[in-house]
Amino acid sequence: MKKLSVLGSTGSIGTQTLDVVSKHPEHFQIEGLAAGSNVELLLRQVHQFRPKKVSVATKELAEQVKTQVSPSTEIFYGNEGLVEVAAGTDADTVVTAVVGSMGLHSTLAAIEAGKHIGLANKETLVTAGHLVTEAIKRKGVNMLPIDSEHSAIFQCLNGERRDDLAGITLTASGGSFRDLTREQLQAVTVEDALKHPNWSMGAKITIDSATMVNKGLEVIEAHWLFGLPYEQIHVLLHPESIIHSFVEFRDTSIIAQLGNPDMRVPIQYALTYPERWHSPAKRLSLAEVGKLHFREMDMERFPCLRLAFECGKMGGTATTAFNAANEVAVGRFLNREISFLQIEDIIEEVLDRHANISNPQLADIEECDRNTRLLAAKL
Amino acid sequence: MKKLSVLGSTGSIGTQTLDVVSKHPEHFQIEGLAAGSNVELLLRQVHQFRPKKVSVATKELAEQVKTQVSPSTEIFYGNEGLVEVAAGTDADTVVTAVVGSMGLHSTLAAIEAGKHIGLANKETLVTAGHLVTEAIKRKGVNMLPIDSEHSAIFQCLNGERRDDLAGITLTASGGSFRDLTREQLQAVTVEDALKHPNWSMGAKITIDSATMVNKGLEVIEAHWLFGLPYEQIHVLLHPESIIHSFVEFRDTSIIAQLGNPDMRVPIQYALTYPERWHSPAKRLSLAEVGKLHFREMDMERFPCLRLAFECGKMGGTATTAFNAANEVAVGRFLNREISFLQIEDIIEEVLDRHANISNPQLADIEECDRNTRLLAAKL
Repeated sequence: MKKLSVLGSTGSIGTQTLDVVSKHPEHFQIEGLAAGSNVELLLRQVHQFRPKKVSVATKELAEQVKTQVSPSTEIFYGNEGLVEVAAGTDADTVVTAVVGSMGLHSTLAAIEAGKHIGLANKETLVTAGHLVTEAIKRKGVNMLPIDSEHSAIFQCLNGERRDDLAGITLTASGGSFRDLTREQLQAVTVEDALKHPNWSMGAKITIDSATMVNKGLEVIEAHWLFGLPYEQIHVLLHPESIIHSFVEFRDTSIIAQLGNPDMRVPIQYALTYPERWHSPAKRLSLAEVGKLHFREMDMERFPCLRLAFECGKMGGTATTAFNAANEVAVGRFLNREISFLQIEDIIEEVLDRHANISNPQLADIEECDRNTRLLAAKL
Repeated sequence: MKKLSVLGSTGSIGTQTLDVVSKHPEHFQIEGLAAGSNVELLLRQVHQFRPKKVSVATKELAEQVKTQVSPSTEIFYGNEGLVEVAAGTDADTVVTAVVGSMGLHSTLAAIEAGKHIGLANKETLVTAGHLVTEAIKRKGVNMLPIDSEHSAIFQCLNGERRDDLAGITLTASGGSFRDLTREQLQAVTVEDALKHPNWSMGAKITIDSATMVNKGLEVIEAHWLFGLPYEQIHVLLHPESIIHSFVEFRDTSIIAQLGNPDMRVPIQYALTYPERWHSPAKRLSLAEVGKLHFREMDMERFPCLRLAFECGKMGGTATTAFNAANEVAVGRFLNREISFLQIEDIIEEVLDRHANISNPQLADIEECDRNTRLLAAKL
């Protein structure tokens, strides 16, 4: 029996994680659930999975939830509640699926409490990769990727020697605006941006796909997850998202992981590794797909990806600034305050003004995050 | 230092094996070479690699070779010579790259002598899979595939649990006549058939690609190599031969091995496993390739593949009859005695008349092979 806590249980990855759990009820037990403000869905989850600890965004929501669950369920709230669900249960594995940089503190707490991590919050490694990987190593826990691209790389490395690795390639669908020119991008709307061609995902990550920021964050995440220099990390446009990513070895052999786009497969793999269990995902028929396409990534067309590589190579707080600027800019775009291309402008402007701190501690990262958000909000 | 003997050293796989060896002279030593009648090439190989034992097809050729090599090189001939090079040297690994069913006896001798096998002679497993796998197990040696498809499957299974395997898919380019109808096949010539679109191979295997007999032999080989029922072995048309084959797991995840068509990569992998060494093969750029295509295999269009599955499921001597009938028929086609489509007719007619012997011993297999050849020669 695997004991799990899920941080961000009402989001896209959270609900799919619980879907995986519900398919194997004899193998999983939910110890804790943390959500934001979607109380209705959270309550359904609590009734179905009977966690011992539950957390929501605010005190008000916590009091609302309390009246509707059994007294044996402890209710928490806020950042402390998130940490309680992350670190204060009997879970052996914590799935970190909260969106954005708020995932960092709770992920570090879970690691310090000796939990294995199913990592869906990529900002954790993006903003504090050096601290997180140090803690992972020190505590001897596993951090298994849930992102489809990183799960693919992780699967392709099974049974292989790191010495033989020549490089990895993350595939990118290109997002909802893949075939638009820079000129055409000027007039796109929020509604246009939210139509992702292949994956059903949350709003922020769908915008991040269109700007290629998401792929940039994945590149930085891959750097930390697999301990690779940026020169060995490549990005390839692959509109169908069927090859989820691949690894090249020094004998020129490439090992790739393929499947229909269904996040339940990488989620389940992170929970069952090194085993693979049956999945309700639709099996891939390459004959049905018929054709797969590939194109070089164009760093002029997608300047945010170039910026991500630059920040990654710079290290320090540069990746925190990149991520925080993007979070604010995407929020402003979704609020219709700025245009789509201004997301890039804001990130670039923030980075131009950023004074990098190398080897930052948690307080430095949090300060950089706060200051960047203030700046990005008024640019 | 790895010590090797190469059976079939002047053929396509043999010469590429020696090319791999010549790229890593500090890691390989050639103990024995066996060839047929290409004395000129064999002599160059003997001078370059200085094997201790050498074998050729006939006594006459052996005497011719003897006069041109150093006295420290022992020269043998015929089937006994082949067995001597296979089993009578200090080699730890024997690459079995002789064409056709003559590879069986020498491969078994090598296994009995405790040698690991780099298997390029697929008829060994096709005609005597049950005897060979039993010997492999009993002697505790490894049999590593050199065929690109089987090497791909073998690589994709690295670090995975057999229990989690749902099936394997061998890709097939479709050979030189992929896009011709059955009607158009009636008039094709030997010259047409020898133009394989992707791989540079010997004449027999190029014809076997066009008839899909080669894929049928590979299916039977995969059955024995990976211990899989035929229901878990699939074939997919993939004209570019970039995905060399793939494995599907029960979580719907697919792991595939890709690369440019270059036999030196699977040959080298069989010799360096579990390590991967640098290879001079051209690195694959999927962006350069641009598109990959896939189509369902059509068993009506390629009846020899259907026959191979049927023989495989039947077991016994059926696969020996299939293989022997094909060898004779291909020889007659290359001699311009029969048309391309008569290759299929002869195989089908032979199988119609075949009285299957289940669980055959070596003598049964050899008798079936002889009798089938006699029959196939006069149909």
